Amino acid sequence: MSDDRFTPRPEDRFSFGIWTVGWQGVDVFGPGTRPPMPAERAVRELAELGAYGVNFHDNDVFDFDATPAERDERVGAFRKALEETGLVVTTATTNLFSHPVFKDGAFTSNDRDVRRFALRKTMDNIDLAAELGARVYVAWGGREGAESGAAKDVRTALDRYKEAFDVLGSYVLDRGYDLRFAIEPKPNEPRGDILLPTVGHALAFIEELEHPELVGVNPEVGHEEMAGLNYAHGLAQALWHGKLYHIDLNGQHGPRYDQDLRFGAGNARGAFWVVDLVDGSDYDGPIHFDYKPPRTEDDAGVWESARACMRNWLILREKVRAFRADPEVQEALRAARVDELAQSTLAEGESWRDVRDFTPDIDALAARGAAFERLDQLALEHLYGVR
Amino acid sequence: MSDDRFTPRPEDRFSFGIWTVGWQGVDVFGPGTRPPMPAERAVRELAELGAYGVNFHDNDVFDFDATPAERDERVGAFRKALEETGLVVTTATTNLFSHPVFKDGAFTSNDRDVRRFALRKTMDNIDLAAELGARVYVAWGGREGAESGAAKDVRTALDRYKEAFDVLGSYVLDRGYDLRFAIEPKPNEPRGDILLPTVGHALAFIEELEHPELVGVNPEVGHEEMAGLNYAHGLAQALWHGKLYHIDLNGQHGPRYDQDLRFGAGNARGAFWVVDLVDGSDYDGPIHFDYKPPRTEDDAGVWESARACMRNWLILREKVRAFRADPEVQEALRAARVDELAQSTLAEGESWRDVRDFTPDIDALAARGAAFERLDQLALEHLYGVR
Amino acid sequence: MSDDRFTPRPEDRFSFGIWTVGWQGVDVFGPGTRPPMPAERAVRELAELGAYGVNFHDNDVFDFDATPAERDERVGAFRKALEETGLVVTTATTNLFSHPVFKDGAFTSNDRDVRRFALRKTMDNIDLAAELGARVYVAWGGREGAESGAAKDVRTALDRYKEAFDVLGSYVLDRGYDLRFAIEPKPNEPRGDILLPTVGHALAFIEELEHPELVGVNPEVGHEEMAGLNYAHGLAQALWHGKLYHIDLNGQHGPRYDQDLRFGAGNARGAFWVVDLVDGSDYDGPIHFDYKPPRTEDDAGVWESARACMRNWLILREKVRAFRADPEVQEALRAARVDELAQSTLAEGESWRDVRDFTPDIDALAARGAAFERLDQLALEHLYGVR
Amino acid sequence: MSDDRFTPRPEDRFSFGIWTVGWQGVDVFGPGTRPPMPAERAVRELAELGAYGVNFHDNDVFDFDATPAERDERVGAFRKALEETGLVVTTATTNLFSHPVFKDGAFTSNDRDVRRFALRKTMDNIDLAAELGARVYVAWGGREGAESGAAKDVRTALDRYKEAFDVLGSYVLDRGYDLRFAIEPKPNEPRGDILLPTVGHALAFIEELEHPELVGVNPEVGHEEMAGLNYAHGLAQALWHGKLYHIDLNGQHGPRYDQDLRFGAGNARGAFWVVDLVDGSDYDGPIHFDYKPPRTEDDAGVWESARACMRNWLILREKVRAFRADPEVQEALRAARVDELAQSTLAEGESWRDVRDFTPDIDALAARGAAFERLDQLALEHLYGVR
Repeated sequence: MSDDRFTPRPEDRFSFGIWTVGWQGVDVFGPGTRPPMPAERAVRELAELGAYGVNFHDNDVFDFDATPAERDERVGAFRKALEETGLVVTTATTNLFSHPVFKDGAFTSNDRDVRRFALRKTMDNIDLAAELGARVYVAWGGREGAESGAAKDVRTALDRYKEAFDVLGSYVLDRGYDLRFAIEPKPNEPRGDILLPTVGHALAFIEELEHPELVGVNPEVGHEEMAGLNYAHGLAQALWHGKLYHIDLNGQHGPRYDQDLRFGAGNARGAFWVVDLVDGSDYDGPIHFDYKPPRTEDDAGVWESARACMRNWLILREKVRAFRADPEVQEALRAARVDELAQSTLAEGESWRDVRDFTPDIDALAARGAAFERLDQLALEHLYGVR
Repeated sequence: MSDDRFTPRPEDRFSFGIWTVGWQGVDVFGPGTRPPMPAERAVRELAELGAYGVNFHDNDVFDFDATPAERDERVGAFRKALEETGLVVTTATTNLFSHPVFKDGAFTSNDRDVRRFALRKTMDNIDLAAELGARVYVAWGGREGAESGAAKDVRTALDRYKEAFDVLGSYVLDRGYDLRFAIEPKPNEPRGDILLPTVGHALAFIEELEHPELVGVNPEVGHEEMAGLNYAHGLAQALWHGKLYHIDLNGQHGPRYDQDLRFGAGNARGAFWVVDLVDGSDYDGPIHFDYKPPRTEDDAGVWESARACMRNWLILREKVRAFRADPEVQEALRAARVDELAQSTLAEGESWRDVRDFTPDIDALAARGAAFERLDQLALEHLYGVR
Repeated sequence: MSDDRFTPRPEDRFSFGIWTVGWQGVDVFGPGTRPPMPAERAVRELAELGAYGVNFHDNDVFDFDATPAERDERVGAFRKALEETGLVVTTATTNLFSHPVFKDGAFTSNDRDVRRFALRKTMDNIDLAAELGARVYVAWGGREGAESGAAKDVRTALDRYKEAFDVLGSYVLDRGYDLRFAIEPKPNEPRGDILLPTVGHALAFIEELEHPELVGVNPEVGHEEMAGLNYAHGLAQALWHGKLYHIDLNGQHGPRYDQDLRFGAGNARGAFWVVDLVDGSDYDGPIHFDYKPPRTEDDAGVWESARACMRNWLILREKVRAFRADPEVQEALRAARVDELAQSTLAEGESWRDVRDFTPDIDALAARGAAFERLDQLALEHLYGVR
Repeated sequence: MSDDRFTPRPEDRFSFGIWTVGWQGVDVFGPGTRPPMPAERAVRELAELGAYGVNFHDNDVFDFDATPAERDERVGAFRKALEETGLVVTTATTNLFSHPVFKDGAFTSNDRDVRRFALRKTMDNIDLAAELGARVYVAWGGREGAESGAAKDVRTALDRYKEAFDVLGSYVLDRGYDLRFAIEPKPNEPRGDILLPTVGHALAFIEELEHPELVGVNPEVGHEEMAGLNYAHGLAQALWHGKLYHIDLNGQHGPRYDQDLRFGAGNARGAFWVVDLVDGSDYDGPIHFDYKPPRTEDDAGVWESARACMRNWLILREKVRAFRADPEVQEALRAARVDELAQSTLAEGESWRDVRDFTPDIDALAARGAAFERLDQLALEHLYGVR
């Protein structure tokens, strides 16, 4: 596995959540199978593997109830590892879902004191994020939701959700931080239904904020696929709105529990189109992995899986570039009229009047095959590596 | 079944698509099991059952390739039935998905002539819609999508989709029609992935249009539930954005093919919360059913199912009102702090500074139970009719 | 909620897993929100609520690494509570999924020592189960599965799975225990894919065992619904095979994470048909609840939800009996020819020769409506309590 | 695409349903987009592409209401094409789902005359199947099911289903045909819930038949994946029971409508494991494709997609063989203890007594990593073609 083409380099901008390789394996049915991993160890190992950056929750670095001295010690060790390895903090986020206090959510908890505390906890970590140079602040509202119908008035909850982003927006502006927020949607788990369940819902929500320009989305492969949605389509719509501020890459097998498989393991064809889209776009954030090394793995397995995430991106990147460069593909794209979609439906200067009585040869139009199967088979053969 | 409480009246504003009771039962695996139903017969029978209005596709009334004379005859018969029964045309829509010409979509077909023709076909029916008094024009882009990754450039397709709504918006404004559009999202079927797959995606899209004020959404129970989403939550977010222009009620059993069961058959608890939300909101459109009488049924079964849609709404409406009026429920809502969510997180005049160091008694907050189970059980017992 | 009709009595044979009310709320995203509950407390509270029996994993009563003295003390306290309350141990089971040693499964772990240890741990608890009077021994192989394709040779794993049941069958027979096994299928979570994923797969597997008469199934509502399957249909097939040895009742919203909602919360119409089927069958095991009080709830909420499980069964039992007794329903069943399905297709004494040239009036047969919508609406109105 | 390695040859035993390439594109939302294809044309074109055999429904060859003369003419043309091309009829099946008479099923229709007619129609086509040399007779009970709870008594329906297979078994035995049945499970669509919804349910059912040796299963990729199940696992269990009589290959994207994509398009990693399993097993039936060329395609697209099905199998076959031959893979399999699963848990001659007190070093066992991630990444890199 030492092929140079697929060895990650810092310029590939790969990043990982500290909590990914640090996941101990706790689930509903059993405790962890791996020892805790201090943030500084995660940093050093990821640097060794060729990563560029990291993302962290406050409580990935220090415990929820750490004393100030403990917090400083832990942050110090984290910072030292960053400095020594050159790893960048691309992103930070707040853990607003683990502590029992957040059992009914944070920004939309029915309990007002919880909401106020959630704002404070977030501001605490925004300060640390800014200090460590993060440019994106992710907000996954994992417990913002409900299991039952009367427990949460959704419209009121959205008012509170908006209020939280408005307050935090002011905070970032008042402090002069160069930081943008990225909302990470998820349809369910750990709540029965989570607010802002998909990329679309989050994009719509952002438009109602006081500072929409400060807020974008952080779509995660598995979260969209848990709703049976096409992740690449979600990314494309986010790009279309100018709102793709971050991406969370992993693997999933459709509607079921959140699997957080390594990138590439899961929907392999979907991954091809994700790399094709992102590589061909102006997205300039990190290529970020948010996955969980399976609970079956020991420490060696953790690093195998982390390495594989990056390697799979590079393998797929090579493939999608070859796909786009392949003359037969280009011809097949034309045959499928993909270029014709880029022509506006009305010509320059036309209005509805110019098509008001448009009468094509319906039979001829209806008889035209779309030629999508040939095109898709070419893509699949690039994925297989047989072209 | 002649209980007065549950007999529909025009003031209940129930409406049906002509294509619902008119569905012949064609599916992928077999032809129709029922004869064609002329639109005028649907109108008369629905009026008899107590409906208030109807929605129609152009080709529910006349065939795609009807001659002008045939079209006039068919529209005349439809109009006559409307006049004689007093049924209102609340809504209209275009069939842009049945004819082979639309096999790759209409507004986002790769084929530009198809896109131009789709605009023209829509304008034709907008004229008829306006003439018949419709106030909402539904747009379900059932074939706007793809089965494979390279076939459709999603960002470009969204450009074309926006272009279509911008052109149609100008048309409606230029013609002076009092008509708003309602986009109906769907995640898949008949295309592998459909553009604007959920309420959220459609709400976000609308904000990019030239005339966002002209366009809202028409969420359908089954379409959201096919993505595992909570339909009432989707309606609530649409209301929150001021964009709930229409609703499509039916029944579904989660992620699978589009079942279009009668309203009430499907997710019964979900239906309770839908009626609770809509009945307690300022939504003032029709209570519209978009379902399909199962292919097993004959003509009598068609009308049984149509009657049951309305009846189930009325039964549930009685229940949700009793639920909200029940003093024990009101007490349980307070115990669950549902009212506390309506308090803003920051008090009047507060800013982030006022919560920057907010330090509650975490242990006390964490120990508080949310009391949601008791509340939800009360709701369930209202659904069961045992309170 | 003190209506006598819906107050559970021992003769209703309601039972609960000790782990249900004892669940502390640990999930992938956070630690418990409730303190540990000793098994004896669960017993006493459930008795108070009107339950008849309990089911337990070994490690619901004592810790995995309890010393013999600790184990004896814990078992003693459990037994004392049982004796004092009169609660019956209807069922027992082994925890073969929590400890890290079982991270790749127990009976089908690739690690032979784990498999041998799993047999021993099961035999230990079978002894206790028999001593406490359990008649059914449940086997949920929660970690028997895989996340990736080469990790588990499924045919070989089924050989090992069969071996385990054959060994345990001999054990029970050699010891003279009056105990039958009930396999509990689940499609996924916590493993990517679990062996014997549905009722069907388990029923087929049982036929290959040395002692198929000792082994049946324990279908769980949520587990079948996670695969989009109709739970009542699964129960019916299990009954048809004479293999419904136990049932696990709870609530779920289709394909997603395992929600373990209280019975009644989830698919309400499905619950109606489950009670209808079980109440009308010769199933004579306990009416067992395997659910999890949501993590949002405190101790009071735990008992609210437990009480509601039983109450909902009783409410639905009343409804299904009224449904079956309703003359209009009986007439609608006949109209739907449900009774005609009970007539054999060939008459007594007929063979294929008698239908070899059977030529009905196809057009007349095709024109007959199935009259299912009317029948189903009657059922729904019984569920609503408006008939 | 003329690479010799991936050009199908008759010895690859590829077969297609006549209805696959013949699908005109009718769905719930629109009529066909392609003209009808006579069976003989399908035969000739498939032969040209390198197929070995075909499967047919009676009504793929002649219409439901064909006169005897029309039937003979159509069968004659079909037979002539078979003879001229050398294509083998590997399999046949009855269309018991399209005609309105089967709207409530065939063998389990509530209407007894329909059940009797279904037997007769099946016997008619069994005669033709035997005459044309088919060795497997597929039974997909697409309409055997229900949308609502009281409409179908499942236990009674299973009695009738068993009766049908018992009658047909006698027929085949009495006639001396060398023909076995293969039941094709499906969870839903076109019925709300279909009887025998998965491979497991069908395998269990078969054991209750009079002639279980005559009946096996025909699992279809998409049908199992619509239930979120692992298709390769289902095949493996069928092989374990000795019941894999036929396979239906295509592509699907998880729980949603039945997509019937070409093999390879869909779950690409799943396809790898399917080929690995089948190629390494003693399955000796045809490699059969049951897919639908998307409705967007014209005639050229139909043949592109058919060719691609076979090509993708050959590409994957090359890959899985390289995977199994790769020394690093073999070492990784050992590291993952995959071989250790093949050792029986009890040694030769051991009984439960030998493990009754088995006490391993739990901590050491728990600490062992399963090493699955490395193994799975090797597989993925074989799929990608980068090893």
